[in-house]
Amino acid sequence: MARGKRPSEPNGVLFDAYGTLFDVYSLGLIGEQLFPGYGAVLASTWRAKQLDYSRLRTLCDRYVDFLTITRDALIHSCAVLRLDLSEEKCQRLMQQYGCLTPFPEALAALERLRDHRIPFAILSNGTQEMLGSAVSAGGMSGLFGYILSADQVRKFKTAPEVYQLGLEAFDCLPEQLVFVSSNGWDACCATWFGYRTFWVNRADEPGERLGISPTGEGRSLNDLMSFLDLQ
Amino acid sequence: MARGKRPSEPNGVLFDAYGTLFDVYSLGLIGEQLFPGYGAVLASTWRAKQLDYSRLRTLCDRYVDFLTITRDALIHSCAVLRLDLSEEKCQRLMQQYGCLTPFPEALAALERLRDHRIPFAILSNGTQEMLGSAVSAGGMSGLFGYILSADQVRKFKTAPEVYQLGLEAFDCLPEQLVFVSSNGWDACCATWFGYRTFWVNRADEPGERLGISPTGEGRSLNDLMSFLDLQ
Repeated sequence: MARGKRPSEPNGVLFDAYGTLFDVYSLGLIGEQLFPGYGAVLASTWRAKQLDYSRLRTLCDRYVDFLTITRDALIHSCAVLRLDLSEEKCQRLMQQYGCLTPFPEALAALERLRDHRIPFAILSNGTQEMLGSAVSAGGMSGLFGYILSADQVRKFKTAPEVYQLGLEAFDCLPEQLVFVSSNGWDACCATWFGYRTFWVNRADEPGERLGISPTGEGRSLNDLMSFLDLQ
Repeated sequence: MARGKRPSEPNGVLFDAYGTLFDVYSLGLIGEQLFPGYGAVLASTWRAKQLDYSRLRTLCDRYVDFLTITRDALIHSCAVLRLDLSEEKCQRLMQQYGCLTPFPEALAALERLRDHRIPFAILSNGTQEMLGSAVSAGGMSGLFGYILSADQVRKFKTAPEVYQLGLEAFDCLPEQLVFVSSNGWDACCATWFGYRTFWVNRADEPGERLGISPTGEGRSLNDLMSFLDLQ
C-alpha cells in the first residue's frame, strides 16, 4: 500500500456529523422541557421531516440550506403534533443544534486517528456555520482537516455530488477513504458511491434493505478503531 | 381558452394512485390481523420506509421497481418492529396492494370528468402491473386515458422526469394539466414542476413547509369537482 500503510489503513476518514460525532439526544430533552410528554415524538418527527425535506428539495433541485430545512421541519412537526411553537421555543430548539455534545468516545477516537497520522474530515448536510459551532462547542476545534458541507454543492445526501466532496478534498480514489455514519442509509449510499464505509449502529437497528451493506459495522466509534486495526 | 373550455377546465387531470384514488387503509387492517396491536404502526412504518427507499434509490440512481421497494420496506419495517414476518404473511400483505378498494367518492368523480370530456390518467410510482391490478380490482377498467408509471423512466417521485410523463402523454403545457395527490409533498413538488395541483388533504394535515403551496386543496375528490367548477 501507499506510504507503507497497513491494508486497512485509509488515506483519510470522513465523518457524518449529527448522530455520528454529535449526540442529538439533547434535542429530545429540550423538547420534553418545552412540551412535556412530547419530547421523544417531537424529536423523531422533526428528524424524519428534516430528512424528507432534504431529499425532496434535492430531487426537485430546489435547494435551501440545512438550517432553513431544519427550522421548516421543526415548524411543520409541531403543527402535525398540534404543539404551540412560539418564536422563543423555536429559537431554543434551533440554538441547541449549535451546542450539541459529542458522543463520549468521539474525541478519543479522533485523537487516535491523529496520533496515527490518518487525516480526517466532516462530511455533512449541515452548513459550515452549523458545523463550525458544533465542532467548537464540542472542544474539537483544529482537529479536522476539512469541514465539508453539502452547502458547497447545493444538494443534500445522498446525492453523489455530496459524497464527491470527500474525493476532491483528499484527492484520492473513493476506496482509499473510509466514510463513517450512524445512519444506515447514509453508510449504504456511500458504499454505492465507492467508499469503504463503517456504520456506527448505535441503536442496534436492522440493516437497510437496499441490496448493499456497509463495509463494516459497530456500536460506537471505538469499534471503528478495531475496523481500522488501530487498537 | 382552447376548445371553448371554461378557464378552470384543464386539458387533462393526472391522479396519484395510492392514498389518492385507492384506499390503503386495508393494509393496516390486514397488518392488525397478522400482528395484533401492530397494524397501525406497521402501516405507517412501512409507508415511510417505502418512500425513503424510493427517494434514496432515485438520488443514487439505483433503481429497482416499486414492487421490490415495497417488499424491501415491509421486510425492514417488520425487522425494526421485531415482528416475525413469515413468507406467507409477507405475501398476504403484498397481495393486498393489488386489491385495494377505491375511495367511496372516486368512481363518481372520474365519471363526472368523463361526462365533461376531460381526459384523465394515473401518474404513480407503482409499476404498470401493480396499477393495472388496482384499477381492475377497483372496477375502473377502461376509464383512464393513460396509466403512467415511474417505472417508464426508472426514477421515482419527486424527480421531474416522473412528472414529465404527464406532459408527454397529453402533449400540452404543464399549466394546462391538473395534478391531484393526497400527499402534500407530491402536490407541492408537482407545483414546482409547473402543474396546477390539487391536494386531497384527507387527514386534515398541516401544509408542507416547502415554500410553495398546491393550487387548490380539499378533503376528498368531491372537492376536486368544485375546484374544477364541475358541480
